[in-house]
Amino acid sequence: MGLRYADGMADTIFTKILAGELPCHRVYEDEDVLAFLDINPLSPGHTLVIPKEPAETLDQLSDEASAAVGRVLPRIARAVLQATGATQYNVLQNNGPRAHQAVFHVHFHIIPKLEDGRGLGIDWQLGTLGDDAAELAATIAKQISLS
Amino acid sequence: MGLRYADGMADTIFTKILAGELPCHRVYEDEDVLAFLDINPLSPGHTLVIPKEPAETLDQLSDEASAAVGRVLPRIARAVLQATGATQYNVLQNNGPRAHQAVFHVHFHIIPKLEDGRGLGIDWQLGTLGDDAAELAATIAKQISLS
Repeated sequence: MGLRYADGMADTIFTKILAGELPCHRVYEDEDVLAFLDINPLSPGHTLVIPKEPAETLDQLSDEASAAVGRVLPRIARAVLQATGATQYNVLQNNGPRAHQAVFHVHFHIIPKLEDGRGLGIDWQLGTLGDDAAELAATIAKQISLS
Repeated sequence: MGLRYADGMADTIFTKILAGELPCHRVYEDEDVLAFLDINPLSPGHTLVIPKEPAETLDQLSDEASAAVGRVLPRIARAVLQATGATQYNVLQNNGPRAHQAVFHVHFHIIPKLEDGRGLGIDWQLGTLGDDAAELAATIAKQISLS
């Protein structure tokens, strides 16, 4: 499971952006959320949406902070499409270095996917559900009911 | 921009699951959200989280429905990690066929990323922000302010 921001942990680059210590190309801000252009865009308009609440990974984020991010994703996605002319896009949120997380403050990428291929490249290796699917679903459901 | 579910449009497989006309391995349900195992998992525990509100793409989803999905993502992610033993994962939401959307009802994937490589494969071709970044950010910000 991801680590929480703990006392004494180094700030991330996003903490510094939130504190105004580093600049960003801001596109949206409210009480709970900041959104700005990714400085290494996969395509024009690639935007990051972050909660102001510090958490390394999504599983550590509060329900309220995550709801606040969820609430503004459609609005920001519409604006990115309108501003860039893109019509398709991916929303991606990575947790852990193996899962391509590079900054350890929760962030959602909004990445336009263009006809020329720019945007998120995805390698999708389909599996199939095994005989243990019902048991696995029940185990996950039980964990949720206990939380 | 994605299409809305319009009158007369064909239901998706997820509409049928929501209506109880097709089975699923359910892991969570509330008034606004349903979560169940993906039948073609990229890794064990691959879970789909969908709003009950019909919308083809995230930009068409209401703020409230998107907030409801956002609110439960941390809780469901924690349960998937606890049930599978995975420690890292990606959250992915695709909009448009080019962006790898296959079912045209909004869905968020929670995909454990395992040490053996199973999970989401990502091809990340970094770009750099151009001289037009400030203008682009301002254009997106203006679109949001108008919405």
